[in-house]
Amino acid sequence: MMKVFEEPNRNQWMDLVTRPSGHDLSQDSLVENILQEVRSQGDMALKKYTAKFDQVTLTSFIVTKDEIEQAIAIVPEDLKNAILLAKANIETFHSSQIREVKIIETMPGVLCWQGSKPIEKIGIYIPGGTAPLFSTVLMLAVPAKIAGCNEIILCSPPDRNGDINSSILFAAHICGVNKIFKIGGAQAIAAMAYGTKEVPSVYKIFGPGNSFVTAAKMKVQQEGIAIDMPAGPSEVLICADDTADPDWVAIDLLSQAEHGTDSQVVLVTDSKELAGKVQEQLKIQLKELPRKSFASGALNHSHVIILKKINDQIDFINTYAPEHLIINHANADEIANRINNAGSIFIGPYSPESVGDYASGTNHTLPTSAYAKAYSGVNLDSFTKKITYQKLTAEGLQGIGPIVEIMAEAEHLIAHKLAISKRLEKIKKQE
Amino acid sequence: MMKVFEEPNRNQWMDLVTRPSGHDLSQDSLVENILQEVRSQGDMALKKYTAKFDQVTLTSFIVTKDEIEQAIAIVPEDLKNAILLAKANIETFHSSQIREVKIIETMPGVLCWQGSKPIEKIGIYIPGGTAPLFSTVLMLAVPAKIAGCNEIILCSPPDRNGDINSSILFAAHICGVNKIFKIGGAQAIAAMAYGTKEVPSVYKIFGPGNSFVTAAKMKVQQEGIAIDMPAGPSEVLICADDTADPDWVAIDLLSQAEHGTDSQVVLVTDSKELAGKVQEQLKIQLKELPRKSFASGALNHSHVIILKKINDQIDFINTYAPEHLIINHANADEIANRINNAGSIFIGPYSPESVGDYASGTNHTLPTSAYAKAYSGVNLDSFTKKITYQKLTAEGLQGIGPIVEIMAEAEHLIAHKLAISKRLEKIKKQE
Repeated sequence: MMKVFEEPNRNQWMDLVTRPSGHDLSQDSLVENILQEVRSQGDMALKKYTAKFDQVTLTSFIVTKDEIEQAIAIVPEDLKNAILLAKANIETFHSSQIREVKIIETMPGVLCWQGSKPIEKIGIYIPGGTAPLFSTVLMLAVPAKIAGCNEIILCSPPDRNGDINSSILFAAHICGVNKIFKIGGAQAIAAMAYGTKEVPSVYKIFGPGNSFVTAAKMKVQQEGIAIDMPAGPSEVLICADDTADPDWVAIDLLSQAEHGTDSQVVLVTDSKELAGKVQEQLKIQLKELPRKSFASGALNHSHVIILKKINDQIDFINTYAPEHLIINHANADEIANRINNAGSIFIGPYSPESVGDYASGTNHTLPTSAYAKAYSGVNLDSFTKKITYQKLTAEGLQGIGPIVEIMAEAEHLIAHKLAISKRLEKIKKQE
Repeated sequence: MMKVFEEPNRNQWMDLVTRPSGHDLSQDSLVENILQEVRSQGDMALKKYTAKFDQVTLTSFIVTKDEIEQAIAIVPEDLKNAILLAKANIETFHSSQIREVKIIETMPGVLCWQGSKPIEKIGIYIPGGTAPLFSTVLMLAVPAKIAGCNEIILCSPPDRNGDINSSILFAAHICGVNKIFKIGGAQAIAAMAYGTKEVPSVYKIFGPGNSFVTAAKMKVQQEGIAIDMPAGPSEVLICADDTADPDWVAIDLLSQAEHGTDSQVVLVTDSKELAGKVQEQLKIQLKELPRKSFASGALNHSHVIILKKINDQIDFINTYAPEHLIINHANADEIANRINNAGSIFIGPYSPESVGDYASGTNHTLPTSAYAKAYSGVNLDSFTKKITYQKLTAEGLQGIGPIVEIMAEAEHLIAHKLAISKRLEKIKKQE
């Protein structure tokens, strides 16, 4: 059960915001070996590691058209419709993030603007394991398509029959993923980073994964491949007062805890009464859950924080910087406004995290482990890069040139200065 | 002098776009030691390394008010005015990047929006060495201030008298930098990443530096501290036709080459005649430059690429993905539109790179080494992170709830489903 801390003083906070699991250094050399082998031996190394980790021997990794058609036939109609509706909401929200180009005249004749261009080739990793995360396919492939990425590839580990879950294939298909590969783990990250005969290399890799996948992403990032963000176990912080229904608070905590024993859930409240009722509900509801062993494992290193003052609550939340923040509180809007560090915020009693996980339209790929202090969740910008442009007229250069000459000279960069002076001379002659 | 390649075939391109200098692995353990010592011994380690590398013994690192006032008194008036004008342009351009919040109703009663929040604490590194880069102070501190970062600290190595260049101090002062420290190299990055008694820790570190600084930034990034971007030596690619003045093309190449022998400059043109004239001009102009040894070193591993077809030129440029791209060409606008990979683009004959380096308003902290394929240059967003928000009404949840229930169940996440079902039941009872 969750441990309760009543009015912890600020010296204690550092401990209370530290996430349970750390980086496992022992994996590093294994991951390093996998990366190097895939780099040097390509598809042969992929075959070896797929046989080893996924226990299936594949001659080719790509998912064929036939396999996709079979998957489409298998997925139940109601699930297909749900996925299509979620996709439409994700499209609506991410399309709203497209920015118009604004041309700014910073000085007369000096035009500057910023443009967005798609990252041409991106890779998406979708984990296998206990839950088939087709929702993550939507969260990554939909904005990639809106951004205009022209090569979107996806890797996901095969099961022992050499298949990928049909709803993952369906989601990838409707989102316009170009190629899907049956590759998992660090070897999938290596394949997308370096390319093999079968798998094209990409410029940026997205998606969640276990600690091997995360370690591989961090390593290829060092070599210049961009990644979405550093990743840790999922987490939720709920800020609630006694207007909140303890039943709903409990199930919201559990819906994060069921992800895995390494998840963390936190309840911040001014009400000891609410805290007590939530703990009771947790006990009752836990029994109903098929994934109760995960959930109870997570609860064991999770905290209830009782803080009477709203300012302390807000400071604590900003210090914790939760991936998901549910504000089930009479003053939910005001609190939301004062939060600086969080991945995604769910405001009011009717906004459980599940809606954002699947269908409200916001992205569910979010910064964990207090990375929200410096990182955004995935959004349309994650699939683009900004180019700046400047275009000067002769008059514009005459206006700004002398400023540049003075500054360049002061930085001892004389060619920088001469690039201006030589132009100004000729412009003057032509006048 | 620059080496000329006439109609290189595409197999050769991979070699031609490879940047000259690579990662020096031998530095890694030295940098690792510095990071660990600063982490464990704080200011004592900073003193040790400052004595060792900067050859000055300091008792305190912070720049005092008196020192700042003295610096302000020393900087010449015309330089002050130039810096203030450049600052105004940078402010204008980066302020134009502020986005309005758009509330999107993805389904009836389902409101989603994206908000920008400042990264609370950021650190700026400004190198010492041959050129006092006060312009970089403007490029990093101005957008940080606009973003609303409330702690902006700056580290720069002291000279042998224990001073920082006065124009760097002036620029930091007018930009509202909160604290300036006389610390350089990997030890400065460590101080800002981990914090010491004197130096506060920050969430994100910006700024250029030598290979030690870069290695230190990459290492702290692995530990969760965000950095602006991976960095390599500076570079420019000029795309020019025979409408371009060879005199101007040459000085633009040189103004990049003078940064250091590890810089690279590339000329892409369809005109052998222009290429010849530019090479002649390079010889003549090189003699005028105080930094000619740097510049000629850079030219020695730089290329002239002759490609007759404009499509080939554009493909080559996109494959090279230059940090700076100058388009001095009759069809400059059209070419600019077709470039997908570049840091900053300078359009037309009157737009030398120098204007963007100092004063046009665009940022000069840009992705080198083909990182422009996946990374943006520094811009206002670099100092913020996006939080997403969702707020549902009871009716909104009734509309979207069934979709979420179906998807959650298909992912075997039953608590996710129950977070909806429990709410929908009670909403129904209350109706």
